Amino acid sequence: MTNKLTVRQLFDTESSTYTYLVYDEKTLDAIIIDPVKEKVQRDLKLINELALRVHYILDTHAHADHVTGAGDLRDSLGAKTVIGKNAGVNCADVPISNGEKLLAGSFEINVRSTPGHTSGCTCFVIEKNIFTGDALFIRGCGRTDFQGGSPHTLYNSIKTQIYSLPGDTRIYPGHDYNGQSFSTVAEEKKFNPRLNQNTTEEQFVEIMNNLKLAPPKKIHEALPANLKCGQTT
Amino acid sequence: MTNKLTVRQLFDTESSTYTYLVYDEKTLDAIIIDPVKEKVQRDLKLINELALRVHYILDTHAHADHVTGAGDLRDSLGAKTVIGKNAGVNCADVPISNGEKLLAGSFEINVRSTPGHTSGCTCFVIEKNIFTGDALFIRGCGRTDFQGGSPHTLYNSIKTQIYSLPGDTRIYPGHDYNGQSFSTVAEEKKFNPRLNQNTTEEQFVEIMNNLKLAPPKKIHEALPANLKCGQTT
Repeated sequence: MTNKLTVRQLFDTESSTYTYLVYDEKTLDAIIIDPVKEKVQRDLKLINELALRVHYILDTHAHADHVTGAGDLRDSLGAKTVIGKNAGVNCADVPISNGEKLLAGSFEINVRSTPGHTSGCTCFVIEKNIFTGDALFIRGCGRTDFQGGSPHTLYNSIKTQIYSLPGDTRIYPGHDYNGQSFSTVAEEKKFNPRLNQNTTEEQFVEIMNNLKLAPPKKIHEALPANLKCGQTT
Repeated sequence: MTNKLTVRQLFDTESSTYTYLVYDEKTLDAIIIDPVKEKVQRDLKLINELALRVHYILDTHAHADHVTGAGDLRDSLGAKTVIGKNAGVNCADVPISNGEKLLAGSFEINVRSTPGHTSGCTCFVIEKNIFTGDALFIRGCGRTDFQGGSPHTLYNSIKTQIYSLPGDTRIYPGHDYNGQSFSTVAEEKKFNPRLNQNTTEEQFVEIMNNLKLAPPKKIHEALPANLKCGQTT
């Protein structure tokens, strides 16, 4: 392998969302994952300073808690937007399915469908990193009570699509609410309090069905906007 | 080199402080830089889960915006606290000076004194990473209007102690207020709006003397506490 992959994490304090700029330091090929609309100017500035060639703008799913910056970045960068074909987002340039590969110049993105938080959730594997969106968090996971969510489905997604990866694979989540930045597959299999290597499907479903969470504050604004790639006007 | 250094970034939303857990994945030797008192339980949990052997708890300076977790972590971990000898903190186990080296089991910490934000500021260089505290931020730098601060001194510290490092050295700052995680020496020398490779000392002093910043909200609480390693009772 002659490339040198760098993962640069960017944070949106309001929604506690992580955006990822992933690039090859040698070739400057790049992608961006889960951009936030309010942070598009920050992200564009950094992309320009680093002289990156962004091939794809990927969303792990149609978010309920923030508006995606995908459409705005597409306009500015001329890159293609990518989202799972089951996410219900018809404006995306590249609807993707489980097992597909995308080539971003010098590096490859492997698509793993991980429904359960929403029916269209997707994780992206790049070298020894997985970008898990809201399927799996550091010592947590996404809720399963709306947008086609299902604890049964999420259990199987995490077990078969994430925990099957090598233990030293880094997990980069879509959110963190406690100031943590990344984890590994081995760590979550040991320490995730909702779903670790000893948790049965029944136990997980019981936990998820009893969370009693309030609806996301921005769902009525964010979701319709995200179905239009973050561009409602 | 047979070790495998990992830098794990931890964030305190209230003060926008970055704490760094730096460890060797192979030997589990570790240090922690700039812990925040309110986050000590989070940090201890992670240290225990990862089974790390923490040798040193380092503060880049006596902070004015948050209380250090150094004293509490020392009690729990039995590790030694470290701070610059000019920081005015008499309770530290290891007062350090420019050019000193500390050995944390399998990896070395190189001490670079960088006064200017405060008179006792220190940066820590570990392999190709520098932990800059409040001397240098991503596209910014620490203020210079209290605690022995001086824009003349900070200019020289940044130029001689940070910008003299190889361009691909990663910069891990003590704070970020815009969701950015790290930078590099090459980037800051090009893009830092306060002090880049073209900025003269006169220009930098002019910028710093005209910032018109309000005092840090917690200075009257944090500073006295930090002079006692974060333990006032």
